[in-house]
Amino acid sequence: MILAALLTSVGINLGLCFIFFTLYSILRKQPCNLSVYAPRLVFERKRQEGGQSNLERLLATTDWAREAWETTEEEFLSTAGLDAFVFMRIFVFSLKIFTFGGIVGLLILLPINCMGSQLRDESDFQNKSLDSFSISNVNNGSNRLWIHFCAAYVFTGVVCILLYYEYEYISSKRIACFYSSKPEPHHFSILVRGIPVPVGSNCSDIVEHFFQEYHPSTYHSHAVVRRSSKLQILVTDAERLYKRLTQLNKDNTPQRQRRDGCLGLFGHKVDMLDHYEKTLGDIADNVRIEQCSVAGKEVPAAFVSFKSRFGAAIALNIQGSVNPTHWITEQAPEPQDVYWPFFSVTFIRRWISKLVAYVACNVLTILFLIPVALVQGLSHLEQLETMFPALKCILRTAIVTQVITGYLPILILQMFLSFVPPIMIMLSSLQGCISWSQIQKSACTKVLWFTIWNIFFTNVLSGSVFYRLTVFLEPKEFPRVLAEAVPAQASFFIAYVVTFGWTNIASELFQLIPLLYNYINIIFVGDSDTDDFEAPSIPYHREIPRILFFDLLGVTYFVLAPLILPFLLVYFCLGYIIYRNQLLNVYVAKYHTGGEFWPTVHNCTIFSLILMHIIVIGIFGQKKLPLASALILPLPILTLLFNEYCRKRFFPIFKAFPTECLIKKDREDQNEPNMSEFYDKLAIAYNDPALMPIKYSGRGGNSHRLPLLNNSEV
Amino acid sequence: MILAALLTSVGINLGLCFIFFTLYSILRKQPCNLSVYAPRLVFERKRQEGGQSNLERLLATTDWAREAWETTEEEFLSTAGLDAFVFMRIFVFSLKIFTFGGIVGLLILLPINCMGSQLRDESDFQNKSLDSFSISNVNNGSNRLWIHFCAAYVFTGVVCILLYYEYEYISSKRIACFYSSKPEPHHFSILVRGIPVPVGSNCSDIVEHFFQEYHPSTYHSHAVVRRSSKLQILVTDAERLYKRLTQLNKDNTPQRQRRDGCLGLFGHKVDMLDHYEKTLGDIADNVRIEQCSVAGKEVPAAFVSFKSRFGAAIALNIQGSVNPTHWITEQAPEPQDVYWPFFSVTFIRRWISKLVAYVACNVLTILFLIPVALVQGLSHLEQLETMFPALKCILRTAIVTQVITGYLPILILQMFLSFVPPIMIMLSSLQGCISWSQIQKSACTKVLWFTIWNIFFTNVLSGSVFYRLTVFLEPKEFPRVLAEAVPAQASFFIAYVVTFGWTNIASELFQLIPLLYNYINIIFVGDSDTDDFEAPSIPYHREIPRILFFDLLGVTYFVLAPLILPFLLVYFCLGYIIYRNQLLNVYVAKYHTGGEFWPTVHNCTIFSLILMHIIVIGIFGQKKLPLASALILPLPILTLLFNEYCRKRFFPIFKAFPTECLIKKDREDQNEPNMSEFYDKLAIAYNDPALMPIKYSGRGGNSHRLPLLNNSEV
Repeated sequence: MILAALLTSVGINLGLCFIFFTLYSILRKQPCNLSVYAPRLVFERKRQEGGQSNLERLLATTDWAREAWETTEEEFLSTAGLDAFVFMRIFVFSLKIFTFGGIVGLLILLPINCMGSQLRDESDFQNKSLDSFSISNVNNGSNRLWIHFCAAYVFTGVVCILLYYEYEYISSKRIACFYSSKPEPHHFSILVRGIPVPVGSNCSDIVEHFFQEYHPSTYHSHAVVRRSSKLQILVTDAERLYKRLTQLNKDNTPQRQRRDGCLGLFGHKVDMLDHYEKTLGDIADNVRIEQCSVAGKEVPAAFVSFKSRFGAAIALNIQGSVNPTHWITEQAPEPQDVYWPFFSVTFIRRWISKLVAYVACNVLTILFLIPVALVQGLSHLEQLETMFPALKCILRTAIVTQVITGYLPILILQMFLSFVPPIMIMLSSLQGCISWSQIQKSACTKVLWFTIWNIFFTNVLSGSVFYRLTVFLEPKEFPRVLAEAVPAQASFFIAYVVTFGWTNIASELFQLIPLLYNYINIIFVGDSDTDDFEAPSIPYHREIPRILFFDLLGVTYFVLAPLILPFLLVYFCLGYIIYRNQLLNVYVAKYHTGGEFWPTVHNCTIFSLILMHIIVIGIFGQKKLPLASALILPLPILTLLFNEYCRKRFFPIFKAFPTECLIKKDREDQNEPNMSEFYDKLAIAYNDPALMPIKYSGRGGNSHRLPLLNNSEV
Repeated sequence: MILAALLTSVGINLGLCFIFFTLYSILRKQPCNLSVYAPRLVFERKRQEGGQSNLERLLATTDWAREAWETTEEEFLSTAGLDAFVFMRIFVFSLKIFTFGGIVGLLILLPINCMGSQLRDESDFQNKSLDSFSISNVNNGSNRLWIHFCAAYVFTGVVCILLYYEYEYISSKRIACFYSSKPEPHHFSILVRGIPVPVGSNCSDIVEHFFQEYHPSTYHSHAVVRRSSKLQILVTDAERLYKRLTQLNKDNTPQRQRRDGCLGLFGHKVDMLDHYEKTLGDIADNVRIEQCSVAGKEVPAAFVSFKSRFGAAIALNIQGSVNPTHWITEQAPEPQDVYWPFFSVTFIRRWISKLVAYVACNVLTILFLIPVALVQGLSHLEQLETMFPALKCILRTAIVTQVITGYLPILILQMFLSFVPPIMIMLSSLQGCISWSQIQKSACTKVLWFTIWNIFFTNVLSGSVFYRLTVFLEPKEFPRVLAEAVPAQASFFIAYVVTFGWTNIASELFQLIPLLYNYINIIFVGDSDTDDFEAPSIPYHREIPRILFFDLLGVTYFVLAPLILPFLLVYFCLGYIIYRNQLLNVYVAKYHTGGEFWPTVHNCTIFSLILMHIIVIGIFGQKKLPLASALILPLPILTLLFNEYCRKRFFPIFKAFPTECLIKKDREDQNEPNMSEFYDKLAIAYNDPALMPIKYSGRGGNSHRLPLLNNSEV
């Protein structure tokens, strides 16, 4: 790619961003868009309509950015939660390393690269290939490469130091959040699976007996899991219907009467209220019947609650039975975070599902090569010309060339990529995770490796993808092949940052699809009630891999093509402000992991560093500087040792809380006056929502649920 | 190697074995050899001299073998302990798999191999190359290879089933041993390291405070570790001297007076008793001074004891502090098993030592190639002839050729190998293990991989060792290279089993070195006292890898050259009887691991199976049967899955005991009348023996140790 094409791309994307920002500034002030741009505030009932004059509403102001910027870390943490805080730390961390990297790269490495004459790029500035700004342009055997060598060492050192302090900071925040938390059911509970139920016995009794026997002083209560997937569908139906019914009850719209035929256009006129009530009654009856039948379908799994956090930790950490495949314990997730459908499976089946999910994920990752290879063809125009000679004259037009090489491939790639996170969520949920947060975490890792493999490696090793991929079978050749291929793709990735990164950030702010959906809703359905309004939650499994991929690009290209860094810095600056704004106004966390995404970020950064080292080893080999190549070798080893140390020093904090914290919190509870209320709540916290008694009253519009079915009775 | 050479080797070794057995049968009955052939019984004072007439003493009988055979498993377990029991199960397991393998191999595979004509070995039976009995002789593309294919599947299946049942059996024995054990200090104690001691505080107080705070109901006592390596040397000296003194006191030999000059030959005559007593007094004073100074040199580590096993398990399993590098817990070893020298090190230093030990172990393993390559030269006579043309006429003599190719290489190799176990013990003790049993376990794994690498791989890939070793950098080529090389070395390994295996077993029985030492002792020192007699303990780290290596040979060569199996069966039969005899009569276990060597055996067998599969994949490729090659692929995958299942199902039992067992044992203790005595013993069980007060009385010959220094006082 030449410089002009890059500038075109930058121009287009800056324009797009500017349009998005302006539109956002205006649209967010319109009362009707409140549920799109501030659903969190609507949900928490902090913001109501009005308060601004009509003129102000039409002005594009930047007060939202100022607000986002001015919120302190403590305020942000208490409002958005630890996970959102950790998410924002990715931006802070990236800004730190790339500010340092940018200064070194642009002021020291870039001039050295430009001074080289390896590529003999004599064209004028506009037509200069981006490659002349990369390390490829430095002359072979030049002593200037030692500056790159030092830069690799210094940069790795700085990144590792920052990683260490960041890990320490986030660990301390995690502990602080735990200390400041109220008693919560998931701190007091564990999930037990693989309960050995002899024929003729009842799971509940076995659980009761086991824990009364071995944890008599701390055992509190338990809730056996039941096979309820059919019931869940019924309950969802009933709830939807009930919502519609209350809606109808409130409104005095003429829509209350409707024909009962196709699409409500033909057939007899019926009173909708009567119709819905009748259906609801039927469903409620079905639910009750099904609940009774489900009551017997016990799964050999139970949520067991304890009187103290430390009691739960004891049962969690010490293997219960002589047979380690029985009484397998796991920390219980938050009650609203439990993923119910996957409980009805045995140890072996869960194990096989995990394997299947793993294989499927790998197959998907590899098969995705096909669209990537097609897209990659677009940035090699010559290949396209030989394939479709008819297009030759069109392809030779300057603007077409620039759009095609600079913009189109990435757009198509992004379209394909948007299918990946939902698929990975599906695979992760197949895998036997017991909570939504675990599913999201596992999907996050999957999407991350998918992205790295499919965007980085296959783009880098493309040209003749399938041939070059055999390099993975010959590890010896790895640095050489990467050193040839990676710098050559620098221009593609700069374009990728500008196009995909910037636009993505801007569209995150603009929320196009919710906005359209909102307008459709207003036009066709009328203003909806805010009572049953649900604010969206941020899909970490989609966002984190995206951001980490930019980190990977920055780290690997720091030595090779530092020109990428300013574009990345713009991305991270924009991202910092915009995601802060979104997390404060738009997203509401449905469940918390307590910052457990950070280890993924840490590992990915270490991976990026190692990848950078491998490429640099190859580059120095290629540039006839074998001594530098050999002297880089200690760097990946030291980095891995550093990672190992961090894993020992910080990772355990993200797996479980230590005795010290647990006992301190338990002692605090003893002075808490509401503990008996909490224990009552704890006893029913993990009852399957689908099994909760259902009783919808008729016309009054009042709903109440009465406890008909109690676990301990069954 | 030709058949005649093999037969020579078998002849020589059978002869040697026969001589050893006969000599053993006679020598063991001589009263003076009691401490060589039945030290265990002497140690336990079960057997005294006499009881047999002079004639009987000179007859070679096989009653020892009958006795060893007739001991039941329960008797053996209660006499020799669980570790010895597990050790014997290796023989039982190997006999089972190779009996099955031998039947299939000799009756089905061997005839098929002989029927082939790939090698065109038309020589007479005596000069037939051993290769014609291997799979190399089957014609390329022959459908008979499908029988080998089925054999690989069936054999793997049988081995896996037997592995499963063996693991299950040993797990159950481990649990049963735990149930039947008396209260033992190491069940109630943990070792804590990385205690954060602020400047000016005292470690003992910190430990006391921490456990009083977080484990108030179960904490019992603690013993801080002190830096005592210098002191240990002094104490050892004192004890040696004291022994000699008591010996002199008892004897009324004329040796009491001796000259004080060089070697006791020159200088003044002194009374030895006076001399020793004076020296002992000096040393004892030094010890006391050193003990006082050591008392202040606390290491931030302590043995902490609890009132119950479950209490210890809680403190062990739940991370104590917010900083995971502080308060690191580990199960305490038996008090006599503690390896004291390595306590005085920090978290980081232990980590670095571990790394250094790891690197050193690898370097040693690789450098060992040099002697192996030299030895390997001997079995390629042609190479030797070209290197030393002068030897040509000698080398052409039939008997020389047979001895050199069949016997000498292995003898030299064995000589080199005998240095390896002590070196590995040294590396393992550097590594920061806290007990002798851990050191032995870790050394066992090291010696095992060393053996597999240096005897299997380098022999197989020799010829041009260094060239072929590059195969490890190209995993794709791996099966092909192995398939070429492994069958070619079948004859070497058959000779190895016959020479090294058989002789080794026979010499184990004969105990040549202790026997010689015993005679020297009798002749020069006179009959020693049995009071301070110490029975040897079996060096598992040397024996287990040896046996497992024969397992590996059997498994990998089962399909390729089944001719090896009868020789292996002889080895395992002899081994079973002889080691049983030795464990019952010779060795006394100084410390117990509770059968923790079995997981190593299991993993090694799985490794052997996978190696066999890889070789078979290569063989089928080479034999132009790509379909069979592809259809073998699921086999290693299934084997690995099986291994993973076993790891989940059984391995946790070998790491720690479950709640169920711990609580049951704790409840039993409540009815135990001697518990308060045990608790008193527990409080001082982990005091450093070097720090124990020393008081040796003079002439009376009575020794007693008085508690002068108490941990809690310091």
